[in-house]
Amino acid sequence: MKFSQTFIPTLREVPADAVIASHRLMFRSGMARKLANGLFTYLPLGLRAFRKVENIIREEMNAIGSLEIKLSVVAPGELWKESGRWESMGESMLKVKNRTGADLVISPTAEEAVTGIVRDELSSYKQLPISVYQINAKYRDEIRPRYGVMRGREFTMKDAYSYHVDEKSLDETYQKMGTAYRRIFKRCGLAVLPVRADSGAMGGSGSEEFMVESEIGDNTLLLCRECEYAANVEKAGCKPDYEAAGALADAAPLEKIPTPAARTIAELCAFLKTDAKTFIKTLIYRAVNVELDLSDAPGCAFLKRVRLAPEAPAVYAEAFFAACIRGDLDVNEMKLAALLKASEVGLASDADVERLTGAPVGFAGPVGLASLPVVADETTAALNDAVAGALEKDAHYRHVAYGRDFTPWLVADVRTVKAGDRCPACGGELYEKKGNELGHIFKLGYKYTKSMNVRFLDENGASQTPVMGSYGIGVDRTLASIIEEHHDDAGIVWPMSVAPFHVVIVPIKYEGAVKSAADAIAVGLEKSGVEALVDDRNERAGVKFNDADLIGIPFRIVVGEKNLTLEAPSVEVRRRGEPEAKRVPVDAVVQETAGMVFDELMKLG
Amino acid sequence: MKFSQTFIPTLREVPADAVIASHRLMFRSGMARKLANGLFTYLPLGLRAFRKVENIIREEMNAIGSLEIKLSVVAPGELWKESGRWESMGESMLKVKNRTGADLVISPTAEEAVTGIVRDELSSYKQLPISVYQINAKYRDEIRPRYGVMRGREFTMKDAYSYHVDEKSLDETYQKMGTAYRRIFKRCGLAVLPVRADSGAMGGSGSEEFMVESEIGDNTLLLCRECEYAANVEKAGCKPDYEAAGALADAAPLEKIPTPAARTIAELCAFLKTDAKTFIKTLIYRAVNVELDLSDAPGCAFLKRVRLAPEAPAVYAEAFFAACIRGDLDVNEMKLAALLKASEVGLASDADVERLTGAPVGFAGPVGLASLPVVADETTAALNDAVAGALEKDAHYRHVAYGRDFTPWLVADVRTVKAGDRCPACGGELYEKKGNELGHIFKLGYKYTKSMNVRFLDENGASQTPVMGSYGIGVDRTLASIIEEHHDDAGIVWPMSVAPFHVVIVPIKYEGAVKSAADAIAVGLEKSGVEALVDDRNERAGVKFNDADLIGIPFRIVVGEKNLTLEAPSVEVRRRGEPEAKRVPVDAVVQETAGMVFDELMKLG
Repeated sequence: MKFSQTFIPTLREVPADAVIASHRLMFRSGMARKLANGLFTYLPLGLRAFRKVENIIREEMNAIGSLEIKLSVVAPGELWKESGRWESMGESMLKVKNRTGADLVISPTAEEAVTGIVRDELSSYKQLPISVYQINAKYRDEIRPRYGVMRGREFTMKDAYSYHVDEKSLDETYQKMGTAYRRIFKRCGLAVLPVRADSGAMGGSGSEEFMVESEIGDNTLLLCRECEYAANVEKAGCKPDYEAAGALADAAPLEKIPTPAARTIAELCAFLKTDAKTFIKTLIYRAVNVELDLSDAPGCAFLKRVRLAPEAPAVYAEAFFAACIRGDLDVNEMKLAALLKASEVGLASDADVERLTGAPVGFAGPVGLASLPVVADETTAALNDAVAGALEKDAHYRHVAYGRDFTPWLVADVRTVKAGDRCPACGGELYEKKGNELGHIFKLGYKYTKSMNVRFLDENGASQTPVMGSYGIGVDRTLASIIEEHHDDAGIVWPMSVAPFHVVIVPIKYEGAVKSAADAIAVGLEKSGVEALVDDRNERAGVKFNDADLIGIPFRIVVGEKNLTLEAPSVEVRRRGEPEAKRVPVDAVVQETAGMVFDELMKLG
Repeated sequence: MKFSQTFIPTLREVPADAVIASHRLMFRSGMARKLANGLFTYLPLGLRAFRKVENIIREEMNAIGSLEIKLSVVAPGELWKESGRWESMGESMLKVKNRTGADLVISPTAEEAVTGIVRDELSSYKQLPISVYQINAKYRDEIRPRYGVMRGREFTMKDAYSYHVDEKSLDETYQKMGTAYRRIFKRCGLAVLPVRADSGAMGGSGSEEFMVESEIGDNTLLLCRECEYAANVEKAGCKPDYEAAGALADAAPLEKIPTPAARTIAELCAFLKTDAKTFIKTLIYRAVNVELDLSDAPGCAFLKRVRLAPEAPAVYAEAFFAACIRGDLDVNEMKLAALLKASEVGLASDADVERLTGAPVGFAGPVGLASLPVVADETTAALNDAVAGALEKDAHYRHVAYGRDFTPWLVADVRTVKAGDRCPACGGELYEKKGNELGHIFKLGYKYTKSMNVRFLDENGASQTPVMGSYGIGVDRTLASIIEEHHDDAGIVWPMSVAPFHVVIVPIKYEGAVKSAADAIAVGLEKSGVEALVDDRNERAGVKFNDADLIGIPFRIVVGEKNLTLEAPSVEVRRRGEPEAKRVPVDAVVQETAGMVFDELMKLG
């Protein structure tokens, strides 16, 4: 391919809104352009790399027997009403009514659509397991899209879905997917951190996120210095850092004390001259679409359950909770939401806090709190001489003892694990990293197959519901992450497997013997199956070198007149990212370069 | 590939709404399923064929130097406002506001988006010509989607766009596209009729449609029995079938006659005992977004022009016209719309007719009609002794002479050409066919580049506007048309180039020596680059044969125990569509079948 016959509009300048390397380099190298906020166009160079990532994913999916299909991007709203997500997905899902009044969705994912198809086709256990995937456009209405294709509104996702007679079969496919994902990212030249993750709005249990470390990552990961433990903060646990409480008989009696003008833990610590670890921090949360049974929960007798869709599980549209935790720690809202099986959890408004606790914000506590269920973090169960809010203005209790002065409705792990906490697996020190999620594999369970009423006949002729998994990879984000991991000051340094071309040939001046030699090398390489780009532009050599570095083609072959007229005519070959070029005889350059290209491809698997 | 490891849910029954062969067969063969009205999913078998069509298109586009890019499916409404199509596209374009209030479009086509990119990157004539394409999802909100993927709401289109310094360069690319399109359809095994076509809402002039004959085609084509002439009725002309009018001096004087209860041409013919060819039929039309200058047109003085977008041409939002034509002929609304440069033309309401002509429907005529512009078909200019409505109830004029009793505002060809009319090229008899449009190439002219203000500097440093072309192919429709052209009562008969598999191997019973032989043949074929499907299901031979015929794989190899135990072990090879199977020695079957597969692939180009 000739440079002049393709369209690679490289830029000297960096787009004003490009703060990360991949965003800068994708635009500077002419790989992509912005059409509007969060909407991008891949130009020829970018699309070549994009397709290579796609094909690596496709090959690995095919290798584990997943079958490629293609759904429409626009999907019927009816299916989303069946699962209940028409309501619960919130504003990130783009909905539109067409001219005939039909509700449509610009697919943010496709559990419903695929489950709808499987429901129609499935009759017998003999058809299971089945695993299908597509590589297709998705749209999620990010409020603030940024970082280029790393966080766009429209993006391409490989989304796979599997259906099984039982959990054992699901686990087998889930394990295969995990292995395929590791191979995919390895072939892309990416170091990923597979981490246990909260399965969030997807429902079900058992999931793994494939993260890359990133300064702009929107996930906080906890990793162990001693072992392989890695978890998203949304789900991370830690080894207890407290002793069990002493005998209740030894505890001092409960005492109410005035605490004027001390509302925060810090103010109270100063006022009472004590440590935050002796406090019970109590926060009032509002939860939305709570699936957990609250029929025996304090203050919840009046709550009614509703179904968002006929076959969807019944939920409480809104419920309030008091969460208690040791004063030096923070409640993790994602862990709390998972515990409550809620679609959303957030701090209650000041007005709700006053209404529910009878006191202004800052004086909530578990003692005597009957208006709402108390969820106590495990750390509070180890306290029997604590300070806690007294449910009235400017007053706290001290000598509060768990099990004597209050009994929570639930005790669970809802703490936010931090760097310095101890690994739950080995006790080693945990540290934090920011991560970006490239892929995610989920055991979904029965959420969609039950709500959408999918059935099959088992070996005994009994009607059963299949269990389901779903598995995603963001293609654009994977591509951008490759650039994040493989670049230097001069530009991109592509891994061979995803490079838009394997070799760039730079004739110093594209004329005469230099032109003939450059063209002959290109033809030779292409015949060997190596993708070569010839920079035939009428530009200064410096401009061509800079562009070759910027677009990051792994091998650069420089063809100059002087080297060609030597007794042993030669060209210069340089591996992108290495400082030194090597002189190679013209006769040998095709074979030698092709050999190096294939070696690198093999190494990446 | 094993049948049991893919997902080919063949059906005995035909979907109730499937009235054409491709719809029936795509569903019966398990290629596709319906997700909702006009929205489809390709299952593994269908996707394999779909990708082959895509790749043929891709190869031929690449071969003429068009560059593949990828736009987002969701596009910013702002660009459509610039071109004016935000207003003029009507309800077939799906628009949606996102949560930040931005106007978005689910792309029905991409002239605006691509022109927006080119505008940003183009500076010099040296960058031109440029031709880019994508193969991507499109959405058009068909009111009544039907015939399966032949007329869906979401579909995949190959859409290409080119930009040029001048018309000559545009013409070169346009010709190359035409050649590439002919190759694409030939490779797909399709007989297409390239026809001149009206360029409709796209604007500009010079276009060619690639049609396939189809009982359900929504285009009427006029073809000549003697020469190569082929045209869409929307644009077809014919040789005049009348003599020039005699001298006005010889014409009888105008006379008003009562015509009670005779409103239609047929009633008038009976009443006046004369032929429809002596009538001037006058119809009142309402036209929308008229670009033609009406400043000197009767009754139009009060009309004001508006711009749908700052750089778009000024148009009259609404205007009325009287169209006159010889009584035995029909006015073609598309030809009239093209003449008026209107986005839409339709018959005026009865109320508008009464208001504008002063008489109820049925008595309009050109004599004395001053309230609106008269557009006369060329046939009326040859009449000087005609009957026409008298602009009052129950009255007509006779002896109406063109040029004496009325002078139209415009004379033009607006007649609907019919079978039996004479070829404008050679005078041969024209006949009609119904056609479905698979592809369309357009010389767009300056419509988008002017309204969106695209500029480049020419060789002399002067700022110029590039001229543009656009070129589409419907991928789904092409695939369905292949099935329409290649099927029999038993199922699909794939051309080799787009067959989802080249060979299906049917072991009578998949066990023992039969299983070993079938697997060995499959491995051998796959090693030679032939795609083989092994029907390893535990089904009766008859079921497997029926499915093999239904899914239409070109070669079927039957492996049976009896033939394997002969002295010279053999299998049976049958070309789909041919009645007789041929016995081939087991040792030779791989090489022989592979040879036939590659022969057929070569023949299709």
